[in-house]
Amino acid sequence: MAHKRNVYLQMTSLEAAREIVLDTFHETIRGTTEMVATPEAVGRILAEPVTAKFSSPHFHAAAMDGIAVAAKATYGAHESRPKQLRLGIDAFHVNTGHVLPEGTDAVIMIEQVQEVDGKQVQIEAPAFPWQHVRKMGEDIVATELLFARHHRVTPYCVGALLSAGLFEVSVLCRPKVTIIPTGSELVDWRKTPPEEMAPGQVIESNAYVLSAMVEAAGGVCEQVEKLGDDHDAIAAEIRRAVADEQVHAVLVTGGSSAGSEDFARGAIVAQGDVLVHGVTMMPGKPVIVGSVSRKPVFGIPGYPVSAIMAFEQLVAPLLARWLGQPEPQRPQIDVVPTRKIASKLGVEEFVRVKIGKVGENMVATALPRGAGQITSITEADGIVRIPAHLEGVNTDQPVKAELLKDVGQIDRTIMIVGSHDNTLDLLADELRAQSSGFNLSSSHVGSMGGLMAIKRGVCHAAGVHLLDENDGTYNISYVQKYLGGMDLCMIQLVLRDQGLMVPKGNPKMIGGLEDLARDDVHLINRQGGSGTRILLDYRLKQLSITPDEVSGYRNEEFTHMAVAAAVLSGAADVGLGIQAAARALDLDFIPVVTEQYDVVIPAQYVDTPAIQSLLNVIRSDEFKVRVNALGGYHTKRTGEVVT
Amino acid sequence: MAHKRNVYLQMTSLEAAREIVLDTFHETIRGTTEMVATPEAVGRILAEPVTAKFSSPHFHAAAMDGIAVAAKATYGAHESRPKQLRLGIDAFHVNTGHVLPEGTDAVIMIEQVQEVDGKQVQIEAPAFPWQHVRKMGEDIVATELLFARHHRVTPYCVGALLSAGLFEVSVLCRPKVTIIPTGSELVDWRKTPPEEMAPGQVIESNAYVLSAMVEAAGGVCEQVEKLGDDHDAIAAEIRRAVADEQVHAVLVTGGSSAGSEDFARGAIVAQGDVLVHGVTMMPGKPVIVGSVSRKPVFGIPGYPVSAIMAFEQLVAPLLARWLGQPEPQRPQIDVVPTRKIASKLGVEEFVRVKIGKVGENMVATALPRGAGQITSITEADGIVRIPAHLEGVNTDQPVKAELLKDVGQIDRTIMIVGSHDNTLDLLADELRAQSSGFNLSSSHVGSMGGLMAIKRGVCHAAGVHLLDENDGTYNISYVQKYLGGMDLCMIQLVLRDQGLMVPKGNPKMIGGLEDLARDDVHLINRQGGSGTRILLDYRLKQLSITPDEVSGYRNEEFTHMAVAAAVLSGAADVGLGIQAAARALDLDFIPVVTEQYDVVIPAQYVDTPAIQSLLNVIRSDEFKVRVNALGGYHTKRTGEVVT
Repeated sequence: MAHKRNVYLQMTSLEAAREIVLDTFHETIRGTTEMVATPEAVGRILAEPVTAKFSSPHFHAAAMDGIAVAAKATYGAHESRPKQLRLGIDAFHVNTGHVLPEGTDAVIMIEQVQEVDGKQVQIEAPAFPWQHVRKMGEDIVATELLFARHHRVTPYCVGALLSAGLFEVSVLCRPKVTIIPTGSELVDWRKTPPEEMAPGQVIESNAYVLSAMVEAAGGVCEQVEKLGDDHDAIAAEIRRAVADEQVHAVLVTGGSSAGSEDFARGAIVAQGDVLVHGVTMMPGKPVIVGSVSRKPVFGIPGYPVSAIMAFEQLVAPLLARWLGQPEPQRPQIDVVPTRKIASKLGVEEFVRVKIGKVGENMVATALPRGAGQITSITEADGIVRIPAHLEGVNTDQPVKAELLKDVGQIDRTIMIVGSHDNTLDLLADELRAQSSGFNLSSSHVGSMGGLMAIKRGVCHAAGVHLLDENDGTYNISYVQKYLGGMDLCMIQLVLRDQGLMVPKGNPKMIGGLEDLARDDVHLINRQGGSGTRILLDYRLKQLSITPDEVSGYRNEEFTHMAVAAAVLSGAADVGLGIQAAARALDLDFIPVVTEQYDVVIPAQYVDTPAIQSLLNVIRSDEFKVRVNALGGYHTKRTGEVVT
Repeated sequence: MAHKRNVYLQMTSLEAAREIVLDTFHETIRGTTEMVATPEAVGRILAEPVTAKFSSPHFHAAAMDGIAVAAKATYGAHESRPKQLRLGIDAFHVNTGHVLPEGTDAVIMIEQVQEVDGKQVQIEAPAFPWQHVRKMGEDIVATELLFARHHRVTPYCVGALLSAGLFEVSVLCRPKVTIIPTGSELVDWRKTPPEEMAPGQVIESNAYVLSAMVEAAGGVCEQVEKLGDDHDAIAAEIRRAVADEQVHAVLVTGGSSAGSEDFARGAIVAQGDVLVHGVTMMPGKPVIVGSVSRKPVFGIPGYPVSAIMAFEQLVAPLLARWLGQPEPQRPQIDVVPTRKIASKLGVEEFVRVKIGKVGENMVATALPRGAGQITSITEADGIVRIPAHLEGVNTDQPVKAELLKDVGQIDRTIMIVGSHDNTLDLLADELRAQSSGFNLSSSHVGSMGGLMAIKRGVCHAAGVHLLDENDGTYNISYVQKYLGGMDLCMIQLVLRDQGLMVPKGNPKMIGGLEDLARDDVHLINRQGGSGTRILLDYRLKQLSITPDEVSGYRNEEFTHMAVAAAVLSGAADVGLGIQAAARALDLDFIPVVTEQYDVVIPAQYVDTPAIQSLLNVIRSDEFKVRVNALGGYHTKRTGEVVT
């Protein structure tokens, strides 16, 4: 069977691609406006300059509770010579906001007025003209400009508009975007129960993400039925969409690459032009910019992070332009990378990072780079852009990060780095439940990586379980060796059972670590520097098994759950890990050892509100109950200081 | 007629009031949750920690287009010894995302595969295991924590949730807030045509502003019919609202002060407790915090900015707490005040400021302070809080400003300071129309104030019309005198007619400036330092009229429109100003002089994209056509450099 493949056109730089999009399509929806009632205009963009119809106030109004007077009539009043005024004749009770009675031009505060009887009051000081009066037009003068065109209406603006007599306003129409999800592998979760999904099928999610992003960008979305990898069907749907006067842009998700089943390009070429196919950005490279009937048709890559980046970099700027707004820009801050971030020359890379404020520094740790990993963006606090002409960024100088979360939230985030343990998830959740606004962000780089992060000052805490081969103790000797001289506090988080995870029923009848030397047993290992790896190496040495004798020794994963997933999927027969992970994926578990998992905290952070909240949570019954429910954990000394 | 007045309880500090609110009511809606479909959950708050149901990918998937192979079968392949693989037996065409066929564990990119014939392919390098494969669970492992509780769902999260098999999620219910607008002076614009409004009546707007703010804070709003100043009706409506299980908080707008028609407090006391009445904040002082049936009932002051501040400082934090979120915090930046900002001791003041980036400095200029001026917040870029223990802030050191607009928008704002002219509004609007994203922000401090602002480096441009009494020239001699030695550029904006504005029909039969000395003619003057004031003083001197002979000489306004409004309202009989202002408010106009209004720009800003855009707009036909339509302007030399 021969396979037809598309060939990428010349790759375009992101900057050039964006220029092509804006230059070609910026006029597509110029001038479509609608009238909406002012209270419903919040978030909308004013189509025209708005001038006040009424002044506000539209009469002279009392600005205080008191009596309204003609200033002239009060001249000469003095403590020693109080002046009496006749109520209803030359003094009138007014409350704040009342119209000034005819002939009056000042208000005297009620506190400075003495009631003589029901008919007269007395004052001891004169008023000057317009004292405590909100003059007509003080806030808004009729005919004055209230807002220039393309102003985004805020809740505050509603007040100014209504006060100025503008009960409806002309706003720019929301651009309408049609999303056509394509891909024979996709499953519509609204129709197919997930348990009926076959291997190779994937839950459709991009169209929903893009819909939400269109709405957030001020547009409206029409999401059509998903199509298979079918040139004619995709072409027909594009044709229908662009023929609809109400539709301003089309996104075809999936099939934008150059594979044999990538039909987006062909479907565009069949009835229009491909202006860009392939942009030197990562993720998001296989994006297509097409033009059909003078409307933009985007081929959006299928990998979720590629889809997001393609939208944010090429579609969102066009929507902003249509709405008279400058290109969307996220706030930026300077961050120091916790380790070198390599990048491919010739490609502008968008590296998702976790950001934390550690001491005075904002530090950034790169998340996994795969375009398929949606969690790399849901977990990210920011994005570091590495320009095409750089091979990466170093730890020796700060770089700009675009923020995905607000700085306040980042300031309240505790960065824990080190060994992975399932109880960290519970800790993160209990911290949200028990504290007001602190977050826990954990990065999994192994126990040794955690100690190094403490040493380099790039985290608030490290999670470690490091066995000392000499005396069987945990953690203390490593901390002394690698962090000697630092003022630290160490808290026991849990004791936990480590052991071999094997598929349900233990088909290869693995009995213990000695079986790892068998030819028919394939291991999935943990990465070097992780406590689990150190434990394995120690035990193998005791058994005189060399790494070369262990099939799969060099295949590494970074978390217990990833090891468990590898065993569940059949990629490996066995892995060393914690019981909680085995139990979570319903694997069998052969215990090897109970080990101590501690949290190391530099002394200067211990008394911060954030860490105090964390320690309170660790010591709480709620946390311990949830940890014990995981299985394979022991919490008797949880929260105690390790000395 | 005797007037009953409330008495403020002990005033409470804002911090203490907020603590009372949160402590008393934080449990009011704990635990109310609802299930929503994941795509509809954007912006909502997760009620529970969410763990993945499925892994993603849930099978081993090709990460590239190419052929899937068993890595073992490729060992030994080399350029000099290519290896042939049989399609369908030991090599399988796969596209990105396809499931790996049974027995394969690696993908070779299509670019590195040579097609031999329809049945065989050839490779020149071996594959290593799991090369170009997205392993099961690489992104998400079933049972792992995806999001801790109280996470706000973003468009990105929708992708992660759907991929993990979570098609609906449990979210916190939106708190429901009932708003009861009160005030006999209020007019419901949906019912009363504005032209039927009597003096003293005010368009109801606060309830709409607060509704929009409740929505923005994640709540839902019920806005009831507005009530008059009627104790029983207000009390009954509060009773009905708190009895409704769905309602979590009540806002009574208006009548929260201590005046004789302020019934909010009484209506709360009648059936519950007043916990706070009066907070040492400004605006917002007369706020009430009450408790009825253990639900919070707030008395919200009637002045629009007071209402906004009371909501933001006391209600919004409670909504945030109910939604498991930290207190809302705006981003802050350091700003340098352009002039001293005085503040009342003992009161925490929220000063609305315009912010601009001038050179390397962020400078802030205070807007009018009145709580009644809604435009003081719609025009503000930020808020400077002056704590209760300070009497103000000086220009000699930066202070914190909470940002109401994003920094990017502030960076793109041109600050023009100086004399007021109606064409500046047109310029602002045309700049929005013709440029992409630049804004013009003008502050009216008079011509001399504009020159001083240039001198102190706190603006990008100054608008001036300063008559030299000696030679009849405009601006140049002043610039030489006050800004000598600075490198500047001066551009003519317009020639404009100044004259006397009088009520339609000129009832006092004013013929010229000499009439200002008449006893029955009351002037409304412009502030000292304004070009118009200098012009008036010059002309009066020529006529040998002293200020003391002019009735109303000491009553000052800051803009032409404010002068025109004073004449229209009858507060004065005559004012000196531009024809455009007279025409806008349908006043009669007696010309006095044609004068030159120029824009002074420090040389270092002239070539910036912002100022270049501004100059292009000034020189555009679109701008000139709109200026001429105002009347009283001459644009023949508009945009020319003045030398």
